[in-house]
Amino acid sequence: MKEVAIGIDVGGTNTAIGLVDKDGRCLALSTISTNSFPTPEEFVRAVHACIQSLLSNAADWQLKGIGIGAPNGNYYNGTIEFAPNLRWRGVIRLVDLVKQFYALPVILTNDANAAAIGEMVYGGAKGMRDFIVITLGTGLGSGIVANGELVYGHDGFAGEIGHTIVDPSGRVCGCGRRGCLETYASAPGITRTVFELIAETTTPSSLRSVAFDDLTAAMITDAAKSGDALALEAYERTGRVLGLKLADAVAHTSPSAIFLFGGLANAGEFIFAPTKRHMENYLLNIFRNKVQLLPSGLTDNAAILGASALVWKETAK
Amino acid sequence: MKEVAIGIDVGGTNTAIGLVDKDGRCLALSTISTNSFPTPEEFVRAVHACIQSLLSNAADWQLKGIGIGAPNGNYYNGTIEFAPNLRWRGVIRLVDLVKQFYALPVILTNDANAAAIGEMVYGGAKGMRDFIVITLGTGLGSGIVANGELVYGHDGFAGEIGHTIVDPSGRVCGCGRRGCLETYASAPGITRTVFELIAETTTPSSLRSVAFDDLTAAMITDAAKSGDALALEAYERTGRVLGLKLADAVAHTSPSAIFLFGGLANAGEFIFAPTKRHMENYLLNIFRNKVQLLPSGLTDNAAILGASALVWKETAK
Repeated sequence: MKEVAIGIDVGGTNTAIGLVDKDGRCLALSTISTNSFPTPEEFVRAVHACIQSLLSNAADWQLKGIGIGAPNGNYYNGTIEFAPNLRWRGVIRLVDLVKQFYALPVILTNDANAAAIGEMVYGGAKGMRDFIVITLGTGLGSGIVANGELVYGHDGFAGEIGHTIVDPSGRVCGCGRRGCLETYASAPGITRTVFELIAETTTPSSLRSVAFDDLTAAMITDAAKSGDALALEAYERTGRVLGLKLADAVAHTSPSAIFLFGGLANAGEFIFAPTKRHMENYLLNIFRNKVQLLPSGLTDNAAILGASALVWKETAK
Repeated sequence: MKEVAIGIDVGGTNTAIGLVDKDGRCLALSTISTNSFPTPEEFVRAVHACIQSLLSNAADWQLKGIGIGAPNGNYYNGTIEFAPNLRWRGVIRLVDLVKQFYALPVILTNDANAAAIGEMVYGGAKGMRDFIVITLGTGLGSGIVANGELVYGHDGFAGEIGHTIVDPSGRVCGCGRRGCLETYASAPGITRTVFELIAETTTPSSLRSVAFDDLTAAMITDAAKSGDALALEAYERTGRVLGLKLADAVAHTSPSAIFLFGGLANAGEFIFAPTKRHMENYLLNIFRNKVQLLPSGLTDNAAILGASALVWKETAK
């Protein structure tokens, strides 16, 4: 009997469901459209059908549990709470709904926490007891591990480094406040920085011909690759702000490594080099030259792996 | 047989040694002058003599272990590392030296971490799994507890919230960088804020007749009590900066409470009210009206209690 776990990555558009073994191999994979289900109950019925279909492919697999990564997922309550990108309003008791079909451990947390557990179980953080995962996408998510355990906080909402404040009179954030880290260090954040530089400077750039709504982080990376000075400066500024707040994060939990994960992390040295340089510059002397800044060790199907890792982490307790 | 622990508070001037029971009662107490001993070995011999004298007072006490709070104390290594206020240079292997005299658990950590453990074992954090203790004295120290365990970090140096950065071009800090929280929120920090306000404003104040070297936080509190507008504004500014960075700390570990401890915390509502108001204002909505801001539950001999609590915490594992 081969032990397997189900990993479910609930996204605003699609939900991906995968069967994963203990070594982090994704053995089977399926996708459904999240928002085509008017109620969470209908959604969970579809998820169940999907899991049964995945399991039917091999008789010698023993399912150990189900892990779910979801936006605004709360580990303690097993709920999705007021997720702005999902059509279901309020508090969704997703774990209870899934447990109606399975007498197995069902564990839910938010996407960034799932990424951190994935990094610990299958990725670059194997054997590390203190590390942080930063997800750089539409927003900036984070999962903090201390003493070998994910930090959930008293209410299950710990790890909101994206909403630490860079400048109280800074950029307007979707959360209603100003100057949050994710308004600078995220895919939309670097886009805003490009437009700030277009306004501030006369530096020639291919990006001057692109409208804000059309500009993507990948286009900024491509411009940087071709030597575009404005794009390079946008990465430099992003790295300065991210490095400053990562130095603050190190002063809290003193991790041995910080992993960067997600779209903007794929820009490689364009984002890693300035972030590392500024972080070292802003670190208290006792922390200097000790914290590794690393790309995620999870490659394909990272979100599913992260969600499935919750099962191995929980059942190992 | 009554079980007791020794708590040792190593300070730059004096070292206090106390016998403490499981309920946090300090049964006997003694003090020696830290810097009158040219070497750590001589210091530890004096500490040993002192402990033997304390224990000789009652035959029915069973010593369970020795806890030590010390500046720059490292939990993992049992060392004091490069403490600027002590006469012994470099790395002092204090735990090894004490263990030459006792076949018992000997545990060392820094002052703020000891305060956090003391709060958990005897104080206001009993039963809490996630909280932060902030010590407001000559500097700003912090001890972070997550999942019921003190966060030491990979190297034993976690919890340096006093050296998170408020403003990279702000006040010069003793650590060699600029804009650290403790340059604003500490006894010397509020003194600097008074002088900033004297320079910036024409607000009348009794503090205008005092030289910087003579001004203490207690004098600022006394002026505030008598309605001095400049002193009140100094507390307002201190609370704004502290509230901003405590909101950042909440975004990291989501504690159920933050305890303020030490000299400046004795200013009561003058420091608590603006800190709480600004912290709430800077908090991400999911954290609002959830985090208690509390005075320490440890009153007399708090540093000794904190150090002794390390023993009960460690032997309960």
